[in-house]
Amino acid sequence: MTAVMPAGVETARDLVGPALAVAVDRLVPDVRKVAAYHLGLTAGPGSPGGRPAGTGKALRPALTLLSARAASSAPERGVPAAVAVELVHNFSLLHDDIMDGDTERRHQPTAWTVYGVGAAILAGDAMLALAQDLLLEDTGPQGVWAARALSAAVQRLIAGQGADLAFEQRDDVTLAECLAMAGDKTAALMACACSIGAIHVGAPPKLAMGLAAFGAHAGLAFQLTDDLLGIWGAPEVTGKPVRSDLRARKKSLPVVAALSAGGAQARELAALLAREEALSEHDLVRAAGLVEAAGGKRWTETEAGTQLAAAHKCLAETALPDDVRAEFAGIAEFITARQW
Amino acid sequence: MTAVMPAGVETARDLVGPALAVAVDRLVPDVRKVAAYHLGLTAGPGSPGGRPAGTGKALRPALTLLSARAASSAPERGVPAAVAVELVHNFSLLHDDIMDGDTERRHQPTAWTVYGVGAAILAGDAMLALAQDLLLEDTGPQGVWAARALSAAVQRLIAGQGADLAFEQRDDVTLAECLAMAGDKTAALMACACSIGAIHVGAPPKLAMGLAAFGAHAGLAFQLTDDLLGIWGAPEVTGKPVRSDLRARKKSLPVVAALSAGGAQARELAALLAREEALSEHDLVRAAGLVEAAGGKRWTETEAGTQLAAAHKCLAETALPDDVRAEFAGIAEFITARQW
Repeated sequence: MTAVMPAGVETARDLVGPALAVAVDRLVPDVRKVAAYHLGLTAGPGSPGGRPAGTGKALRPALTLLSARAASSAPERGVPAAVAVELVHNFSLLHDDIMDGDTERRHQPTAWTVYGVGAAILAGDAMLALAQDLLLEDTGPQGVWAARALSAAVQRLIAGQGADLAFEQRDDVTLAECLAMAGDKTAALMACACSIGAIHVGAPPKLAMGLAAFGAHAGLAFQLTDDLLGIWGAPEVTGKPVRSDLRARKKSLPVVAALSAGGAQARELAALLAREEALSEHDLVRAAGLVEAAGGKRWTETEAGTQLAAAHKCLAETALPDDVRAEFAGIAEFITARQW
Repeated sequence: MTAVMPAGVETARDLVGPALAVAVDRLVPDVRKVAAYHLGLTAGPGSPGGRPAGTGKALRPALTLLSARAASSAPERGVPAAVAVELVHNFSLLHDDIMDGDTERRHQPTAWTVYGVGAAILAGDAMLALAQDLLLEDTGPQGVWAARALSAAVQRLIAGQGADLAFEQRDDVTLAECLAMAGDKTAALMACACSIGAIHVGAPPKLAMGLAAFGAHAGLAFQLTDDLLGIWGAPEVTGKPVRSDLRARKKSLPVVAALSAGGAQARELAALLAREEALSEHDLVRAAGLVEAAGGKRWTETEAGTQLAAAHKCLAETALPDDVRAEFAGIAEFITARQW
């Protein structure tokens, strides 16, 4: 199955990219350079050319502009909220890269490896504070509600990353805990992206809640799909080696589903993942086979389908212009397409 | 000279301490335990007893409660803003400890040494986001203005810490840069603490601006005094070994003032601080003598006096209840008292 990038994503990049660059320009130079590098707005030090600006997928900004349109506003009116969401998403990635010790993101060295841990922590802090600033410049009640919606998503992002860090130390993580973590770490900001554009233009709560529910289900479907790709995704699609999540022994949803299933295959998988030494290619193939045989792949595919269906149901039940509903649906299909 | 803790500081601890604990309770358990430990609300893991709650000096909360009283409100109405300021102050300390590699704070191991860098980064992020939440729960315009005032202070805190990190790599830091850094890193949050209580109860801009100007001058006087204590302060007062800032070769204000003075003593000081090897006790005594001989101590004392006088002038020119003015003045005197 191939998936075509929805047109709205390109449009969002064109509208939101320059506004993001203007926002980042407010930061002091020492902090700005790190944020701009992380966001792909500039090349790193000693790099001859610039990187193409805004190389990220701009999915969240696209959802936020759609969210403003859902409230019968021009997409341009969703730009401040879209920039705020993108800043929060990137604050979180920047800090997570430090915590997880990741050295590469989007085929570039991570910011902390280029500028140091201290500068990367500070740049993340500055992006988080800047996101709230942008929303509060609208001093009307809708600015406050948007800022509170974003802040609630930030607390859930933090809770999700905290759970993720804690899971690394445990071998008894349940599927329910794992789903709750994905809900916090991925779905909460997606729900915010889908509703904050509407909130920021003063939409009624019912519309905002319908959009947030759509985003929460689509976000979970996205994470479930991403976890499938982390094991079975083609390297040319994921940008990572095949079975990379197994190599890192990540407690992703298919793995935890398989381990929770019990039986001989689950026990063999648990023993394999508990080994002291690095896993060979043969081990990784075996592990992927065991996840599948224990039902972890099927469970994850089914759950992704259930969440995607729930997302579509939310869209159908929310009063929206037809073109906006179709574009939301297109993005949900795109981010949950299984490309392998 | 001895200084007596103003009564308002004790009162602030009694009012704000419990509210701070309630606010931190909103965080998810994995994050809460780190924040509570850093704030001195709980003991660390494996520690038999609890620590006395709120062992910090509660200076900023005291200033914020006074700030609400300055706008003719009961001090209790300043509590949410005081908690927000204290959360931001501690978010900043928590992240700075990681960046600076500091292993001890308030005679306890720093949070990152106890819970790990990742958990400490997350707890700081959560405290920053929580501070804004508390202010935005008041959805009226004063909530927004308070949140914006805090956010502006956060950006200056970050700018100041960024400059501090950058200064470590440079040997040509000017006195003007050093003062600007102190203005960002210390005075901005002090100015916010002195005005945000008034802002949050809807005080007119003129009052808020007078209080912020007082806080900015008092904050600079405080930092100048703190830098003097970092060289000449008695260990029983500072809780750190004598001349600790020289040992760490910190580009504090007296040092930069001395280096900027030029002449033979400045050159000898520069050479001493540029040495590869650790400085002996004899070197440290010599360095302190050179800072003094080159005029760094006198400049800093004079500048602290100038800033304190400017702070008092701001108080005199701001329309305030007499008891509130006297208490602000008392705190300014207390935090700039030279105890050695």
